[in-house]
Amino acid sequence: MVGVDDEATVRIPGRLLSMAEVAEALCQAHDGLARLRDNGNDHRQLPSRGALVEAVDALRSVLFPGYVGEPDVRREGLLFHLGATLDRAIRVIREQIERGLCFSGCLIPDHCPTCAKRADELTAQFVARLPEVRRLLATDVQAAYEGDPAATSPDEAIFCYPGILAVTIQRLAHELYVLGVPLIPRILTEHAHSLTGIDIHPGAAIGERFFIDHGTGVVIGETCVIGRNVRIYQGVTLGAKSFPMDAEGHPIKGIPRHPIVEDDVIIYSGATVLGRVTIGAGSTVGGNVWLTQSVPPGSRVSKEPA
Amino acid sequence: MVGVDDEATVRIPGRLLSMAEVAEALCQAHDGLARLRDNGNDHRQLPSRGALVEAVDALRSVLFPGYVGEPDVRREGLLFHLGATLDRAIRVIREQIERGLCFSGCLIPDHCPTCAKRADELTAQFVARLPEVRRLLATDVQAAYEGDPAATSPDEAIFCYPGILAVTIQRLAHELYVLGVPLIPRILTEHAHSLTGIDIHPGAAIGERFFIDHGTGVVIGETCVIGRNVRIYQGVTLGAKSFPMDAEGHPIKGIPRHPIVEDDVIIYSGATVLGRVTIGAGSTVGGNVWLTQSVPPGSRVSKEPA
Amino acid sequence: MVGVDDEATVRIPGRLLSMAEVAEALCQAHDGLARLRDNGNDHRQLPSRGALVEAVDALRSVLFPGYVGEPDVRREGLLFHLGATLDRAIRVIREQIERGLCFSGCLIPDHCPTCAKRADELTAQFVARLPEVRRLLATDVQAAYEGDPAATSPDEAIFCYPGILAVTIQRLAHELYVLGVPLIPRILTEHAHSLTGIDIHPGAAIGERFFIDHGTGVVIGETCVIGRNVRIYQGVTLGAKSFPMDAEGHPIKGIPRHPIVEDDVIIYSGATVLGRVTIGAGSTVGGNVWLTQSVPPGSRVSKEPA
Amino acid sequence: MVGVDDEATVRIPGRLLSMAEVAEALCQAHDGLARLRDNGNDHRQLPSRGALVEAVDALRSVLFPGYVGEPDVRREGLLFHLGATLDRAIRVIREQIERGLCFSGCLIPDHCPTCAKRADELTAQFVARLPEVRRLLATDVQAAYEGDPAATSPDEAIFCYPGILAVTIQRLAHELYVLGVPLIPRILTEHAHSLTGIDIHPGAAIGERFFIDHGTGVVIGETCVIGRNVRIYQGVTLGAKSFPMDAEGHPIKGIPRHPIVEDDVIIYSGATVLGRVTIGAGSTVGGNVWLTQSVPPGSRVSKEPA
Amino acid sequence: MVGVDDEATVRIPGRLLSMAEVAEALCQAHDGLARLRDNGNDHRQLPSRGALVEAVDALRSVLFPGYVGEPDVRREGLLFHLGATLDRAIRVIREQIERGLCFSGCLIPDHCPTCAKRADELTAQFVARLPEVRRLLATDVQAAYEGDPAATSPDEAIFCYPGILAVTIQRLAHELYVLGVPLIPRILTEHAHSLTGIDIHPGAAIGERFFIDHGTGVVIGETCVIGRNVRIYQGVTLGAKSFPMDAEGHPIKGIPRHPIVEDDVIIYSGATVLGRVTIGAGSTVGGNVWLTQSVPPGSRVSKEPA
Amino acid sequence: MVGVDDEATVRIPGRLLSMAEVAEALCQAHDGLARLRDNGNDHRQLPSRGALVEAVDALRSVLFPGYVGEPDVRREGLLFHLGATLDRAIRVIREQIERGLCFSGCLIPDHCPTCAKRADELTAQFVARLPEVRRLLATDVQAAYEGDPAATSPDEAIFCYPGILAVTIQRLAHELYVLGVPLIPRILTEHAHSLTGIDIHPGAAIGERFFIDHGTGVVIGETCVIGRNVRIYQGVTLGAKSFPMDAEGHPIKGIPRHPIVEDDVIIYSGATVLGRVTIGAGSTVGGNVWLTQSVPPGSRVSKEPA
Repeated sequence: MVGVDDEATVRIPGRLLSMAEVAEALCQAHDGLARLRDNGNDHRQLPSRGALVEAVDALRSVLFPGYVGEPDVRREGLLFHLGATLDRAIRVIREQIERGLCFSGCLIPDHCPTCAKRADELTAQFVARLPEVRRLLATDVQAAYEGDPAATSPDEAIFCYPGILAVTIQRLAHELYVLGVPLIPRILTEHAHSLTGIDIHPGAAIGERFFIDHGTGVVIGETCVIGRNVRIYQGVTLGAKSFPMDAEGHPIKGIPRHPIVEDDVIIYSGATVLGRVTIGAGSTVGGNVWLTQSVPPGSRVSKEPA
Repeated sequence: MVGVDDEATVRIPGRLLSMAEVAEALCQAHDGLARLRDNGNDHRQLPSRGALVEAVDALRSVLFPGYVGEPDVRREGLLFHLGATLDRAIRVIREQIERGLCFSGCLIPDHCPTCAKRADELTAQFVARLPEVRRLLATDVQAAYEGDPAATSPDEAIFCYPGILAVTIQRLAHELYVLGVPLIPRILTEHAHSLTGIDIHPGAAIGERFFIDHGTGVVIGETCVIGRNVRIYQGVTLGAKSFPMDAEGHPIKGIPRHPIVEDDVIIYSGATVLGRVTIGAGSTVGGNVWLTQSVPPGSRVSKEPA
Repeated sequence: MVGVDDEATVRIPGRLLSMAEVAEALCQAHDGLARLRDNGNDHRQLPSRGALVEAVDALRSVLFPGYVGEPDVRREGLLFHLGATLDRAIRVIREQIERGLCFSGCLIPDHCPTCAKRADELTAQFVARLPEVRRLLATDVQAAYEGDPAATSPDEAIFCYPGILAVTIQRLAHELYVLGVPLIPRILTEHAHSLTGIDIHPGAAIGERFFIDHGTGVVIGETCVIGRNVRIYQGVTLGAKSFPMDAEGHPIKGIPRHPIVEDDVIIYSGATVLGRVTIGAGSTVGGNVWLTQSVPPGSRVSKEPA
Repeated sequence: MVGVDDEATVRIPGRLLSMAEVAEALCQAHDGLARLRDNGNDHRQLPSRGALVEAVDALRSVLFPGYVGEPDVRREGLLFHLGATLDRAIRVIREQIERGLCFSGCLIPDHCPTCAKRADELTAQFVARLPEVRRLLATDVQAAYEGDPAATSPDEAIFCYPGILAVTIQRLAHELYVLGVPLIPRILTEHAHSLTGIDIHPGAAIGERFFIDHGTGVVIGETCVIGRNVRIYQGVTLGAKSFPMDAEGHPIKGIPRHPIVEDDVIIYSGATVLGRVTIGAGSTVGGNVWLTQSVPPGSRVSKEPA
Repeated sequence: MVGVDDEATVRIPGRLLSMAEVAEALCQAHDGLARLRDNGNDHRQLPSRGALVEAVDALRSVLFPGYVGEPDVRREGLLFHLGATLDRAIRVIREQIERGLCFSGCLIPDHCPTCAKRADELTAQFVARLPEVRRLLATDVQAAYEGDPAATSPDEAIFCYPGILAVTIQRLAHELYVLGVPLIPRILTEHAHSLTGIDIHPGAAIGERFFIDHGTGVVIGETCVIGRNVRIYQGVTLGAKSFPMDAEGHPIKGIPRHPIVEDDVIIYSGATVLGRVTIGAGSTVGGNVWLTQSVPPGSRVSKEPA
Repeated sequence: MVGVDDEATVRIPGRLLSMAEVAEALCQAHDGLARLRDNGNDHRQLPSRGALVEAVDALRSVLFPGYVGEPDVRREGLLFHLGATLDRAIRVIREQIERGLCFSGCLIPDHCPTCAKRADELTAQFVARLPEVRRLLATDVQAAYEGDPAATSPDEAIFCYPGILAVTIQRLAHELYVLGVPLIPRILTEHAHSLTGIDIHPGAAIGERFFIDHGTGVVIGETCVIGRNVRIYQGVTLGAKSFPMDAEGHPIKGIPRHPIVEDDVIIYSGATVLGRVTIGAGSTVGGNVWLTQSVPPGSRVSKEPA
């Protein structure tokens, strides 16, 4: 292994490379990541994080007008602002979906008409889901207000709670994930992860009235299925235990490998649930519990006392 | 519960809604969160996160001039810069306090004179506390420098340590909380939470020389009381065990339900202390310990060895 | 100790200080942190976080062109863009290194020629290391793709994974740390910490093919040494157990006090390894394990079942 | 009179004032312009140029959607964007009108309800005029296209011609002027003046199909009345000859003192027309002509040949 | 004609239109300028002024590195910065040329391949002309330095002189004009016009060592031809006298109608030269002269004394 | 001379240069303007227009607090804001003065101590003049209000009048000019020229109560001397008639060559006064007058009637 001392001797060579030599060396790197130097790929742009972040903020202001975005919209102008913001967000999302499609598989360098058409269709399907996303989020906000003694109003939950922010973005990303949009859903949930410390894979299917309190360190895996009225605290992991390898020793992708959490379950801080196990409806999982097997409905799982 | 397959069939309806139909649907949503459509509330603005973030950065530059904000202020101009920055921050804070007051309870749509006057008073009281906040933060910085072998100077602590950032913002938010300002304190601490992963409720009362090392995942609840010279590591929760419900099954708000940590206590990473228990002065709580009862002064609580 | 009630009485004095009085008080504070009021130090600027964040983003776009930064660079312009971005980043880094040197020790108020010359040398040595950093990062990306069943391409890892972001910044900061640059390395890793919840000290020496999944709450200490092909999950701490004090009760700085993790080790979420212990090559440390002693190669350490 | 040499001796005094002394001196200046130090006026804000410039750009994008402002609005979203932009612009204009009213005469320091109500009324009347302004501008654009052999399309006129820009802003400012709004109209036309070199007072009443070619140096005075289908070239002045003084030797304000230009008149570059004279319909005034008396319809006024 | 009083009565109707009615009215306007409502044109974007302004600033920094744009480029990085800036500017210009082509004539709504290909070719030809533009500008700078007693160095001319700015932009626009690019050249010269008050049509063909002093109010028409070593002062017009109409009374476009100015001519401030006349080599045209006929080489044309 | 047709054939060469070849060609240009490639000059930065524009805006807000810059400063914070803004502006000006000195003559590449010290001295002398500049500007504002029948208050003059803006900037630039600061004064007045169309050389010495109405096209030369209470209209030139050449045919720099305008003179629009002539006190020069000789006090000079 490499130690600090060994590094130091390697590190300061006899002749220092000039800036131009370093630029040349980085430009010539031949290690499979030099995306720009591939032939077919040359002209395709990766999705833009910045554009997606703006679009997701716009969608949040459309879902929660008055709470997010322009603060002084009044009733008589509301529909106009909603429509304009939505229209702008949709165009950005559509462009990013097209980039995602092109980047992830197509071989035509510029303006592939197939990807453009597919992006149109996927965007239309995504947009049509927004009222349902809004409906779900309203239940989440109510659950947050009811489940936290420190909450003084549902407004405060919308306005301040990282759990609401993370779930809002995940519900949007999940719609794109279900539609098969590549790359974009993950960019969105990683944005939420960076802001909140809550890492919910866009693949996770989550029922209504979902509440995450505090939230830092929560990890919810790709194939999780979560019922309605579930409450989770900071540091909870709903993860995979291990994953089967294929013949060449690579993990097989896409197999259900994360927990199913049924309705009305509470999981306290720091608990870890691993594998395709089922937490039965109405169960409570105590803080710091380590759980790798299914439990029947109504269970109370807790750590042995200290 | 909802499974992924069921969703997919629901998700793509026979006829897709147009953008205009979606805007209309979101505009019409009748679920209690459509703040802008309430009658009495129509013209009141929510506080602005952006303005508050700017104000708190301005206050930090006033508390730590030369470390935060304009880097090349020199001694002869210091008082001018301090005064101007403070004046600007105060005006922003006052405006946000007024918005918070109006939003949280008053029924007068525009420029309520009662809220305006109350905002003036609360702001004046807040500002008068800044020298004391500065004094407390100087003790925190000293504690950070002394408590971390990796710290090379107190400057580094002010400049880089997320623990100092989170405690600075909480101490400011706590002053507003004690004055009864609604909504604003929580917005401030959630801003710190997003930047640092450290979630300290503005209600927590914290003594001098408080140091949080690394900090990600720390949660300190609303009614915590923390003495002087306390040190805490990443992943520590000082939380509520359970909370009493009222007759209708809602949690009763405002009851003391989080730990009291006396002077000179150290709590190592990942430890969880729940409920209105007291950690006696000079105690040490080991890493990953799960503690739901009081311990006397001088205790050494640790996990059983693995 | 201080209680909330006591505070309240202290808090609202008979006469409120005016804004000007508060500015005066803060300007006069005599507690050792009034950096701007020290004599010798008066004209030296602290490093600028903003400039460093821009420079590190520029370096990331040079290490991963097309993924980070300008998205529509094409092959024929690549070398120009690489060179220009690198040149700009180098000038910023050099300026910040000079500030760090001046701030950390020199006594000459303006444009100290010794610090300027040393900054030139250190910058040149840092830049010459970039191709090696690029080589290491390519192995990290490959490890991320191979180690995560949810990853759909190496591109997704570069583009979305917080673990890759944190390790990229740490590898850059580590180069500066090894060269003895003060202050700057820690600013860089705390920036990564804020974005990802992953806190790796710039002093940690890390081998190739290093992968952190999810990552929130990971803490890796200053004197850690990590071999090749190591995988770590969220909430893992590689920390110090306790640290020896000098005669005056201050921690002795710089002593090796964090774990050595040999090649091909996996450490699952929430595990804590403390002290200068060695995890032997090929070992697996289970989730939530608490480990304060060395284990031989090939060990399987796990929590007792719940 | 003051000569350069005299100045120099005055200029460098024996003792230089410090920055603080200069700040103090400027703060104490007693010359009638120290607006902030007047008693009654203390809390009233002047209108904001920046806000007005944004609002006028928003109005231009509402009058010429697709030419000005967001370039990729499509037909299905047009009404939403128009409405949202208009709503935003109206709120800004209303706020500025209120500031203008308060500043120009009212004595109540904060939130004068009379000015607020008057601002509501004036804004509503202004907004209701926008369709008529649009109608007039469409005739101006057509006249520009027809009158300039270098114009390739009406689009080019909207998009590039300073004359169209100046007339657009003047027509908006004129509506506010007619309504009696103080200060704001002049701020708007001076903005256009700065961008185009065309200085049309907001008081000037201008008929349809008005075209200014090139435009730099054009000055059109407050009480000008201009008919339909008038064309004007660069450097033309329609000014006042002299103005009657009152008993104290101050110019009497508001008297008609600028020319009346009837329909179908052309005035070539550099011509100067002064006083309340009438240029009869269908006349042509040649370049550099100096004219201080009325001419009948159909006149051809030209300079004597060189 | 319309008088102020008549307007006032029309202006305030019985019922004021609401914001929504005004938006609707503007959206429905049927006057031939509603670009967004045309069928074939629907999806084509107009060129973006903002993008063109950025591109032209980038080109200026490539033509005058160190004077315009990044001020601290050093010699070792110069080629990289030149190349990167040029590459970025070229991509913007190409995109805008494509928009200009599509807008001005093509009927295919989205991504017309003919326009895209033509934009590629035109951009390549434009770029290849930049060294020649640079050569011409160097002669202009030298002429400015030699021709103005107030100039202290050629650097000052590049850095401060509006004449150099206007000619730089015109020379770039002229290259595009000669290539037949629609719309873009005029946008560029109108940008220069707004900044400097100097209005040179992109069609004007201008020889080397051209110097405009002060410049405000200068107008140089589309078909002007200007030789080498010509000097012009503020307020000079080189315009058209009158233009022939076609059978329908519209001006015939594209006919040579502006002056030819031969080598070594000086034209003093305020002079006006109209029509396709020739100012012979070495002539001087005095201030405020009005000239509509050709003069032989070596002429001295001046106003009669006052 | 060069005709359009000839150009076209030259313009499209057989082989187009690539972007890289063009970059190379521009980088290699050897025509005396390649500032960055000179040896001695290599590391010196030109002054920054952007920084100077910010500084001059800051100075304007210090001279006219409440009118320019932060609009909601109140009396109790005024001195702090004045001081902080002034301090910031001074530091910027000092840095730009140093750059100007280094650029204009010194041969030491980096941080020349002589230039640094000289910049300190010149800045201190400049700052000490600000109260006198403020006093002069107050007289200018009063003159504008009294001289323009359209002016409704002195506030409007400060807030809207381009003449006040241009004279403010010229008075600041003139102070620097008198101190011998190179390059910076001209950058400042050219900034005002671009905004207002008014071109006053920083060398012009101007007495109190100076008023320029409308202003576009005004040119006032370097060695002009203007008394008190002078009023000037748009398009007036106070220029040089011709300038003596040295033995090599270059204009001799620095000779008095522009008019002296004594107290109480009015010069109407479009008038041109050339050469070192004197307009006697109390004279009036009519519009479009062309004047190249001195006139005694009390003269009325006017054009012959048309």
